[in-house]
Amino acid sequence: MARVARTVPTLAPLTPEPMETAAESRQPAIAGRPRVVIVGAGFAGLSAALALRKAPVDITVVDKSNHHLFQPLLYQVATAALSPADIASPVRSILSSQRNASVMMAEVTGIDAGKKLVLTTAHAVAFDYLIVATGVRHAYFGHDAWEAHAPGLKTIDDAVAIRRRMLTAFETAEATASGQAPNLTFAVIGGGPTGVELAGAIDELAHRGLVRDFRRINTSMARILLIEAGPRVLPAFPETLSAKAEQQLAGLGVDVRTGAAVTKCDAGGITLSDGQRIETACTFWAAGVAASPAAKWFGVEADRAGRVKVEPTLSLPGHPDIFVIGDTALVQQPNGRQVPGVAPAAKQMGYFAARAIVTRLAGWTTDEPFQYADFGNLATIGRKAAIADFGRLRFSGFAAWLLWSLAHVYFLIGFRNRAAVMLDWAWSYVTFGRGARLITGGM
Amino acid sequence: MARVARTVPTLAPLTPEPMETAAESRQPAIAGRPRVVIVGAGFAGLSAALALRKAPVDITVVDKSNHHLFQPLLYQVATAALSPADIASPVRSILSSQRNASVMMAEVTGIDAGKKLVLTTAHAVAFDYLIVATGVRHAYFGHDAWEAHAPGLKTIDDAVAIRRRMLTAFETAEATASGQAPNLTFAVIGGGPTGVELAGAIDELAHRGLVRDFRRINTSMARILLIEAGPRVLPAFPETLSAKAEQQLAGLGVDVRTGAAVTKCDAGGITLSDGQRIETACTFWAAGVAASPAAKWFGVEADRAGRVKVEPTLSLPGHPDIFVIGDTALVQQPNGRQVPGVAPAAKQMGYFAARAIVTRLAGWTTDEPFQYADFGNLATIGRKAAIADFGRLRFSGFAAWLLWSLAHVYFLIGFRNRAAVMLDWAWSYVTFGRGARLITGGM
Repeated sequence: MARVARTVPTLAPLTPEPMETAAESRQPAIAGRPRVVIVGAGFAGLSAALALRKAPVDITVVDKSNHHLFQPLLYQVATAALSPADIASPVRSILSSQRNASVMMAEVTGIDAGKKLVLTTAHAVAFDYLIVATGVRHAYFGHDAWEAHAPGLKTIDDAVAIRRRMLTAFETAEATASGQAPNLTFAVIGGGPTGVELAGAIDELAHRGLVRDFRRINTSMARILLIEAGPRVLPAFPETLSAKAEQQLAGLGVDVRTGAAVTKCDAGGITLSDGQRIETACTFWAAGVAASPAAKWFGVEADRAGRVKVEPTLSLPGHPDIFVIGDTALVQQPNGRQVPGVAPAAKQMGYFAARAIVTRLAGWTTDEPFQYADFGNLATIGRKAAIADFGRLRFSGFAAWLLWSLAHVYFLIGFRNRAAVMLDWAWSYVTFGRGARLITGGM
Repeated sequence: MARVARTVPTLAPLTPEPMETAAESRQPAIAGRPRVVIVGAGFAGLSAALALRKAPVDITVVDKSNHHLFQPLLYQVATAALSPADIASPVRSILSSQRNASVMMAEVTGIDAGKKLVLTTAHAVAFDYLIVATGVRHAYFGHDAWEAHAPGLKTIDDAVAIRRRMLTAFETAEATASGQAPNLTFAVIGGGPTGVELAGAIDELAHRGLVRDFRRINTSMARILLIEAGPRVLPAFPETLSAKAEQQLAGLGVDVRTGAAVTKCDAGGITLSDGQRIETACTFWAAGVAASPAAKWFGVEADRAGRVKVEPTLSLPGHPDIFVIGDTALVQQPNGRQVPGVAPAAKQMGYFAARAIVTRLAGWTTDEPFQYADFGNLATIGRKAAIADFGRLRFSGFAAWLLWSLAHVYFLIGFRNRAAVMLDWAWSYVTFGRGARLITGGM
């Protein structure tokens, strides 16, 4: 594979085209250059684009939002520890100096695999190679009406909406007229990493960040429930670490309910499978995801979570020029296990698809299967607590938390964001304050 | 006056009340302590609250939003140079350690001056002294339908909406199908400080911040118009400095139109009084303000801008215990001039009202009139350009800009914000980049 990389010519930088010739510039600037269209600027799509930076191709990245989002830290925006701009960068800025890439902000409405066209709200984009990396949204397993009462956490707007709802609950309790007992119950549904992180962060906010700022309510009386239908939290981790995480959550004061499915969700609260009713205006959904409509675009079969079944080479069956990667793809590894829906896997798939295209362009063929290199798994629980799983090496507590912090700051894209996040974190670590505690946006 | 301050006893800090006693804590914690209610947590209201930190009173600050906003830098959020959290702090955080102050997030619906009650969306709040500092909103001089097409800039949500509209205009131009000429016209209506700053910042964004990120359009071809109905921009400054500002704007490439009133404003653009039509999807309104409904609450006469005419002591005529301050008040100074609607004047009025209350509590009476101490006036035009007016000392250009930068960072509340703003500014000064260039919120 190294030999392939050497055969790729380095490109002279293209000069920016003046506006007058914009109309003609829609076709590839260099006639005959293969057009690679990447749908989605998450970890998978962006990795593919960056990996192709020296390839003799014209790349168009299509995304409906203008920014790449560092989703693993989104819960920190939802709990007012970080600002949106700390964990999001404009896709254009990231690809600014990559002259073979252009960015198009538009929503994809369909894909014509036969004519090799991506249909969008703006105009159709022709491709020679297509990489689909559209990711997932939260899913309500057929209860779509629950979304209004239990918002999920996938975008900046989701995070700002959760932040508004959570902070408003404290404000409403403080402003409640005499005699009415304030309701400070928060329910997080789903015991995966997002649910655990969110519950831990709400707990920290209630017990530390806000406690000195309120006069009539004691915010540390807040009750935080973490509800998981399965038998344990963080099921992707070994059982011993799940147990550690549950201990750490209980130590913080989070009320963990495993084996409890939600059967009803409305404006007043939720009902559990054992019949218990929990009155709360603050329910957050971290229980399930469903892939984007990619399967529908291709008219192919999808699994229960909406993922597209792909070849071991990550290409769509029957379409070797179309790759489906990241959380959108259902990939069976040679060892029989499925590739998990985590950021490192998405990045590896993006790099893999880019390499497959470069290989093909160099005149080689390859049916090498994608293999996920698992470098370990981290989940944070709250201030100073986390669990780490590196196969034989498993640990929890402060050391795991420190490793988690360093890893996440390191992987944040762009120096500016890294510095701003470190500043925010250092500040709130010292003061327990929350810098981004703003209630904004319509109610 | 100094003697008054010495007679005020220093208070022992109150211990936080546990939640169980919340219902009873609605009445003053120390029986008989005068209740001061402050409506509005802008510069005026917050200055009054902070000035009363050692007074033997119970303060309640009522605001419909949860944050104090550093409005002079709001245009920088609108033009993606700063994040919302950089220029806004939760009111609770600011007053966190001031034990005689509590904060209530609620909207005021009316004031019963006879019964001494502030009516809110949560519950009524009784007062012994009332300070009304509700500020202004932008006004459309009877053309309320224009707001949908020409949003104004007074809140974080306004700024995020303007940012979205502006960045989306560039994205739409880039994604426009071949053959259609992209429309990159931006019209700012109103040549006061906000309009001048906004026009200068949009210009800088188009010419510097975005230019390398787009492939099909040349963002520096953008046309920025600043439309002012009066004969010159920045009319609060001397004529020589207005002329300097116009020169600096023209040097940046802003098309300044003085003596041009807007006669029509719709989704497609605006029409000027000379009949000229300007096609644009991006019109921003900085042309006028109107005070909050305070005059209506009191059933008193207001001037054309909705301001309440107050006594020279800042109290409402006939109600010596009610003060109206900040932009909500129409104040005639002893020299016959009106107090301008600027942040320093608002802060001075807040301090003045607080001192009047302390004086009264100490058993003194005072009919000393409020006098605005004008320490000078600054307005920035763009990167490295500004004008400064300190009476005899008037200057413009880089020195004025440097002074403006230092003054604004200095006056930002809270260390964290100061450090974050400096980081953002230093970073964008070096790179011309814009850290907060996110398109968020519903379209």
